[in-house]
Amino acid sequence: MPPTPKASQSLHGGSKSEASLFLSDNSKRALEKIRDLMRDAIQMKKNELPDLTLSKLREEYLKLDWESRQRALLVLATQFGVDRKRVHDLISHYESLSTDGGEESDAAEAARYRTEHDLRSALMPLSARLFEQMNGQAGGLKFLVDLRADLIATVKEKNLAALRALDSELKGMFATWLGPACLELQQITWANSAALLERIVVYEAVHPISNLYDLKRRLGVGRRCYGYFHPAIPGEPLVFIEVALTNEIVGSIQNVLFEEPPIAEEEATTAIFYSISSTQTGLAGIDLGHFLIKRVVRLLRQEIPNIQTFVTLSPIPGFLKWLLPKLKLQIRYAQVGAEDIIEMSDPPSTTFKENLLLPEEESNLVEACGKDKESISGMQILHDLLTSSDHEWAKSAKLVEVLRAPLMRLCARYLIVEKKRGRALDQVTNFHVRNGASVERLNWMGDTSIKGLETSAGIMVNYIYRLENIDTNNQAYLNKGIIAASPAIEQYLQSRL
Amino acid sequence: MPPTPKASQSLHGGSKSEASLFLSDNSKRALEKIRDLMRDAIQMKKNELPDLTLSKLREEYLKLDWESRQRALLVLATQFGVDRKRVHDLISHYESLSTDGGEESDAAEAARYRTEHDLRSALMPLSARLFEQMNGQAGGLKFLVDLRADLIATVKEKNLAALRALDSELKGMFATWLGPACLELQQITWANSAALLERIVVYEAVHPISNLYDLKRRLGVGRRCYGYFHPAIPGEPLVFIEVALTNEIVGSIQNVLFEEPPIAEEEATTAIFYSISSTQTGLAGIDLGHFLIKRVVRLLRQEIPNIQTFVTLSPIPGFLKWLLPKLKLQIRYAQVGAEDIIEMSDPPSTTFKENLLLPEEESNLVEACGKDKESISGMQILHDLLTSSDHEWAKSAKLVEVLRAPLMRLCARYLIVEKKRGRALDQVTNFHVRNGASVERLNWMGDTSIKGLETSAGIMVNYIYRLENIDTNNQAYLNKGIIAASPAIEQYLQSRL
Repeated sequence: MPPTPKASQSLHGGSKSEASLFLSDNSKRALEKIRDLMRDAIQMKKNELPDLTLSKLREEYLKLDWESRQRALLVLATQFGVDRKRVHDLISHYESLSTDGGEESDAAEAARYRTEHDLRSALMPLSARLFEQMNGQAGGLKFLVDLRADLIATVKEKNLAALRALDSELKGMFATWLGPACLELQQITWANSAALLERIVVYEAVHPISNLYDLKRRLGVGRRCYGYFHPAIPGEPLVFIEVALTNEIVGSIQNVLFEEPPIAEEEATTAIFYSISSTQTGLAGIDLGHFLIKRVVRLLRQEIPNIQTFVTLSPIPGFLKWLLPKLKLQIRYAQVGAEDIIEMSDPPSTTFKENLLLPEEESNLVEACGKDKESISGMQILHDLLTSSDHEWAKSAKLVEVLRAPLMRLCARYLIVEKKRGRALDQVTNFHVRNGASVERLNWMGDTSIKGLETSAGIMVNYIYRLENIDTNNQAYLNKGIIAASPAIEQYLQSRL
Repeated sequence: MPPTPKASQSLHGGSKSEASLFLSDNSKRALEKIRDLMRDAIQMKKNELPDLTLSKLREEYLKLDWESRQRALLVLATQFGVDRKRVHDLISHYESLSTDGGEESDAAEAARYRTEHDLRSALMPLSARLFEQMNGQAGGLKFLVDLRADLIATVKEKNLAALRALDSELKGMFATWLGPACLELQQITWANSAALLERIVVYEAVHPISNLYDLKRRLGVGRRCYGYFHPAIPGEPLVFIEVALTNEIVGSIQNVLFEEPPIAEEEATTAIFYSISSTQTGLAGIDLGHFLIKRVVRLLRQEIPNIQTFVTLSPIPGFLKWLLPKLKLQIRYAQVGAEDIIEMSDPPSTTFKENLLLPEEESNLVEACGKDKESISGMQILHDLLTSSDHEWAKSAKLVEVLRAPLMRLCARYLIVEKKRGRALDQVTNFHVRNGASVERLNWMGDTSIKGLETSAGIMVNYIYRLENIDTNNQAYLNKGIIAASPAIEQYLQSRL
């Protein structure tokens, strides 16, 4: 007899031991119940009311431990896929309709349309039918969003084609259901319920909210917070954006977060989008922020016509993740000499040797650190400074001044020039430029928090939304991989030569 | 040179003469422009912003006269259908993946899922892509709803397979987009904007609203009006329902519409749904009322827990449309004698001869009219009375009394027994019973308006929603064609024997 392990109580933990491959009788029964409910719901006729069955299915699923949930998802993915027998039959029928391309009668055309439609339906996995029914039920959408969060975690653990296909199916359905037509823009203020505001605190992902006072300030005079709400998930924005009203482009997040509003709202000329956060893990990959920004721009122009500049203050999450390995590699190249590079055991990601620093930048660095240029390279110094514990360099006015030129230049290169398959390396850049923004300004010491220093050496960037350029920028990026940038940014790139 | 007719100005009229087959140069140019815009939008990449193109497309379409709109829809239906070359290639590829049914590698499974997904996408007509993009744009959904109204009218005129397929595609997309998860229930009151209330007056289809005073009463004490709103079509309910709060099941629409509320709201035990109206021609076939009733029931139970009975007061739009031809046929049968029936030139819809009246009903009728039973049949008398101008019978207390028994009995038979493909003949019955209601009560002289007398000899019906029976009723109807009815209704059916 197989051992019957005690069912795990925690949801995203749970035993992954060998023993857990064997299910307890209880778990087996629960799983069979779930499968029967899935089948019942899917087999219902078009107008049959599936509410009872679906409610029971939800209830049973939510009772499962993490291990059994994963199994239930696997059952859904593998046993309720595409009806391939039916697909095969319809393909045969469809092929038999083929003519020599001549004029067809209207009846023949109708038969062809019908078969195309039927074949398309048959290619829809049965699980998708269950999702559609669930979405029709009160609370069903929220259940599906949470289900997809489980699914994403399951795919990470067991990377199976069937699970990936199920995930991409559900994701596609979300994209349809959560189109901008379905989403409502609402301003979030201190007058909203505590339950809602609590979620804002929990979900703020870019610049964490430290306490209630901090939150109140973010919703107060000179600031705005807007959320996208879906009617089926009330009281919980799917995504929200925080805005500060100023009379200039602000370059430092600490200025946005900590200062009292420097001007009256009527004097504001500039809206700074300083944070966009999604709230639902289960909506990963669904681009809601894009529509949100456009709606907020339109709304603010109506409300405060003085505001003519719409600009983000954004982190650069990938800058040092890109720069540090690059530095390390070039330091190695410099040590071994060019001719040995191709002999190196692990294939290098860059095939040419370059000094990432300009001569002047290098000598300034060496001088500032009081090192001997012969014994240690500028790149090594840079690497050591950036990886030093506690980011000591940021506390030295001298080092901050010396590092400014090379890091700003390299950051511009990272944002504008470096690409992967024609797309920006940085996910935030990719998001805004795809939306039609351009890169306006780099801000040295824009975010001096530990997170800011660790990810981007404290640099922040402003992406600007100029309505008249949005389409051009979007198309230049998608068609040619070109990222629009201001003259100031272009300047950095030229100084590279 | 073809004649160039002056472009028609009216939208749903327009010249249908031979000459209009030839397009003016202006119309030709406008149509080409539309086609180019359609193509541009459809060919855009996934993240490209189609807003400009789509706005222009909408603008150009709305400028077209009715004739050109029909042509534009035909272009969309025929030139932007399924890419059959691609479908053919993908089918070949898919068939080549077929194995002998043994265990596949995960990579092979993944390839199969991908091909199934690609084939499904390829089977989607290009026009559907345009619809999806349009739905993503502000105002796009409303445009599509109006476009479908044009499309429905076009299909009626030119019944082509391509147009029907386009219509069914768009209808399917509406069904997805307008799921209950996307719709918001709002009470409509006298506090709403005049613009919205005006639409209620315009769209009320069941019991026309005669004036502002009438409307105010329908929104006032003892009554409720609820609408289903979609975020993308603000200020305009897609469907709305009118409710009266009473302490008994009311059988006469005149009592609901004209009396002051007989009781205080707190004393109400019964909610009478007396009108459901859709507002959008372009949403024909999309069942929004079903979800609306269920939501309103839930809401009212919360608001006024005393209310335990949820019942409609409904018209029977198809009763006389069914009864009169049936009477006519049986009158003919009675005249020619049974043996000649099969010889009759036009094939009769009923193959057996029957007297639609019971002996007692017939003699009462003959007596009341002072006719000689030998010279004229009861069925003939009934037919003559029901088709007499001005419905004279309804003004005679004696005739009203004599007609009651046979018409109520025949009406019960029409509602409960007569079926077409297992479904109720009456569309209203079909709607409510499919939703899980049962037929509770027939009301003689329930609607004495001209419309009521003309369609159902003044009979109205109450369908009752008992939450505990909704699923059973729904399934009995869909699976076995059984319509649940109260004992009182069953009584009518037994008296037929």
